[in-house]
Amino acid sequence: MSRVISWIPTAAGSDFDLDNLPLGIFSPPAEAPRPGIAIGDYVADLSSLFEAELIDEATLDGARVLNGFLARGRAHWSALRTRLQYLFGEASTLQERVLVESSLVPRAEATMHLPFEVGDYVDFYSSIEHASNVGRLFRPANPLGDNYRYVPLGYHGRTSTIVLDGTLISRPSGQRKARDAAAPSFGPTAALDFELELGFVAGPGNAHGAPIPIEAVRNHVYGCVILNDWSARDIQAWESVPLGPLLGKSFATSISPWVVSLEALEPFRVENRIPDPPPLAHLQTDERWAYDIDLEVLLESQAMRAHRFPPMPLARPNFRGMYWHVAQQLAHLTSNGSRVRPGDLFGSGTISGSEPEMLGCLLERTRGGTDAFELPGGERRTYLENGDTVIMRARASAGERRIGFGELRGTIVG
Amino acid sequence: MSRVISWIPTAAGSDFDLDNLPLGIFSPPAEAPRPGIAIGDYVADLSSLFEAELIDEATLDGARVLNGFLARGRAHWSALRTRLQYLFGEASTLQERVLVESSLVPRAEATMHLPFEVGDYVDFYSSIEHASNVGRLFRPANPLGDNYRYVPLGYHGRTSTIVLDGTLISRPSGQRKARDAAAPSFGPTAALDFELELGFVAGPGNAHGAPIPIEAVRNHVYGCVILNDWSARDIQAWESVPLGPLLGKSFATSISPWVVSLEALEPFRVENRIPDPPPLAHLQTDERWAYDIDLEVLLESQAMRAHRFPPMPLARPNFRGMYWHVAQQLAHLTSNGSRVRPGDLFGSGTISGSEPEMLGCLLERTRGGTDAFELPGGERRTYLENGDTVIMRARASAGERRIGFGELRGTIVG
Repeated sequence: MSRVISWIPTAAGSDFDLDNLPLGIFSPPAEAPRPGIAIGDYVADLSSLFEAELIDEATLDGARVLNGFLARGRAHWSALRTRLQYLFGEASTLQERVLVESSLVPRAEATMHLPFEVGDYVDFYSSIEHASNVGRLFRPANPLGDNYRYVPLGYHGRTSTIVLDGTLISRPSGQRKARDAAAPSFGPTAALDFELELGFVAGPGNAHGAPIPIEAVRNHVYGCVILNDWSARDIQAWESVPLGPLLGKSFATSISPWVVSLEALEPFRVENRIPDPPPLAHLQTDERWAYDIDLEVLLESQAMRAHRFPPMPLARPNFRGMYWHVAQQLAHLTSNGSRVRPGDLFGSGTISGSEPEMLGCLLERTRGGTDAFELPGGERRTYLENGDTVIMRARASAGERRIGFGELRGTIVG
Repeated sequence: MSRVISWIPTAAGSDFDLDNLPLGIFSPPAEAPRPGIAIGDYVADLSSLFEAELIDEATLDGARVLNGFLARGRAHWSALRTRLQYLFGEASTLQERVLVESSLVPRAEATMHLPFEVGDYVDFYSSIEHASNVGRLFRPANPLGDNYRYVPLGYHGRTSTIVLDGTLISRPSGQRKARDAAAPSFGPTAALDFELELGFVAGPGNAHGAPIPIEAVRNHVYGCVILNDWSARDIQAWESVPLGPLLGKSFATSISPWVVSLEALEPFRVENRIPDPPPLAHLQTDERWAYDIDLEVLLESQAMRAHRFPPMPLARPNFRGMYWHVAQQLAHLTSNGSRVRPGDLFGSGTISGSEPEMLGCLLERTRGGTDAFELPGGERRTYLENGDTVIMRARASAGERRIGFGELRGTIVG
């Protein structure tokens, strides 16, 4: 099958080609937020395409968040995608192209906004390598716990502090206690960390009391973004028993602005990791839910910027190796009758692999802040310093197909 | 000082007298939801009072939730209260009374709705007696943990399953593992419990990165409701290490419909419990934040209903003895820069006292489900059975003043 090429300049071969078409909320210069689709170096204004009667998805007309569209479900998501692939592709008419062209805003001139309102945010713990590494530091007697291989573990995170790519991250203060101190003290965290994750975004959702069976989950997940679950390890360690993390996480969670649909990720679905032992029946499926997505996290310090060193890669894990997948997580989360709403966010948990260059947070890389590493220029790091920028990227590719998530950046300020 | 008496019949001496004036969202028969004030056996329709130009608080006109009013802040809350006390009191004119009277709907005919939208819900762990009792069951080596007396512990709960008084509670299913079983199994919880709590409701809130100092908290809490943090103890026990409770709690949280303001509770403020050791500086205040509120939880089984036994009181704790108060909890929660929004909900955690008749959940009363107790008619209980109704009440009184919260009911269905 020969692939369709977009007539829109810069689209072909870019992270935002016809195969991708991620959704976001953007403002053209000095205008109000509205939905858009990234295509090459442009954003296509979907309100403008609606007004020109090129698309008929009214939930996108002038909307300031995608929640209405997320609620519409898979058939509508797919119809919009098919329509846009036609309009941006080789078969569209000259008249259509003129209208599409007038809807395009250069991405460099677009201001991005949070793409959806999050009702509930659950951060999971999908990587057994991450869970094992963290467990060895905090619970050496039984690092993984008895439940890990049965329960897709997670906790509710704070929704009010979910922020967009580029938002400055203020170093949080909190209580932390040194192992040999008699009492805790209050002050800025000395163990500020990132967690490299993907965040999945809910579609229509379910009624209270009506669980989503695992075979139905594909109708309930629209797509995903890159997610940085910023963590203050000292605050987290002191507060977490017995109720789990709270202030060690609640100060900020960053997400990337473009929501990549599961439909765009179809070509990159691969065989699930084989769980051992097999999960309980309601968490079993023959459907493939693993995705071959390459991730990358990089660090750039203030000194590195000054000396024009390029950002230093810290880890390059792949998402396919996660122990638990999002279908299991949603089936689990709703198995007690709990309700999921459009725009709910599910963090994967830190994406780590089995090799040293696949560790998705500094806690793992520096073994709890004890093994420092060196940056270009000779600075040393265990945890993040003020002025550090953390850059996350994700991309899937197979043959000519390539899907980029764009970047997620955050800089620490004191 | 002689007290003002309301001219509205049934108000004087009731739980909803002039001193109370709790806010809620109600529908008159076959009409749309709107804000109302409980007064005696009536609800005063605030939209109707606004349209009659008797009050000027536009955020209440036709609003389907109280969030807009909650965002207005203390001066506006107080102005409305003063105005209503005038209108419902002895000094109002005949013309005003005619208009007020036409706004009254019998409470028995009003359908109540969730009074506010909850952005984030944190459930705290304020009772040191409760924390000690639960700790002895699950962590006997160190029941209270090293952090309890320093950190106002809590976790984020699910907002999508916060439901109103009267909502039927479906027995949740989930994973649970018997101590001697090789593996967990999935099925209905065998350890369904209530937790008797108060829930505090946020006012204006703060900007991301700008903590609310403890001395400013009174501007940021509008009032409170009764809260039942339904819990499935077997599911909770199996999932809680290391990330805290999730599915053991997320299936339902019930709240009472009438929000009692802190201003109404002013006469019942009492000296704070003296913490030992003194908390860190940002959690210290000379201001009194303890409230002398009597609570009660009762149980009525299906058989008891059939035999017309009255509900059986299970516990009668008082709120004044809590170790941590809501001012400390909000100062703590925002101390890392985290953001609170109008309508955010803060559960107190189970309210238990030091005596056997003050235990606010069955886990404590039955020592982890091992000590059964008898109901009138001879049935035995460790945890809740299908058909059981849990009734919670709260009331404060001092001399002639009396403030009732009304009731919070929930019945278990299979």
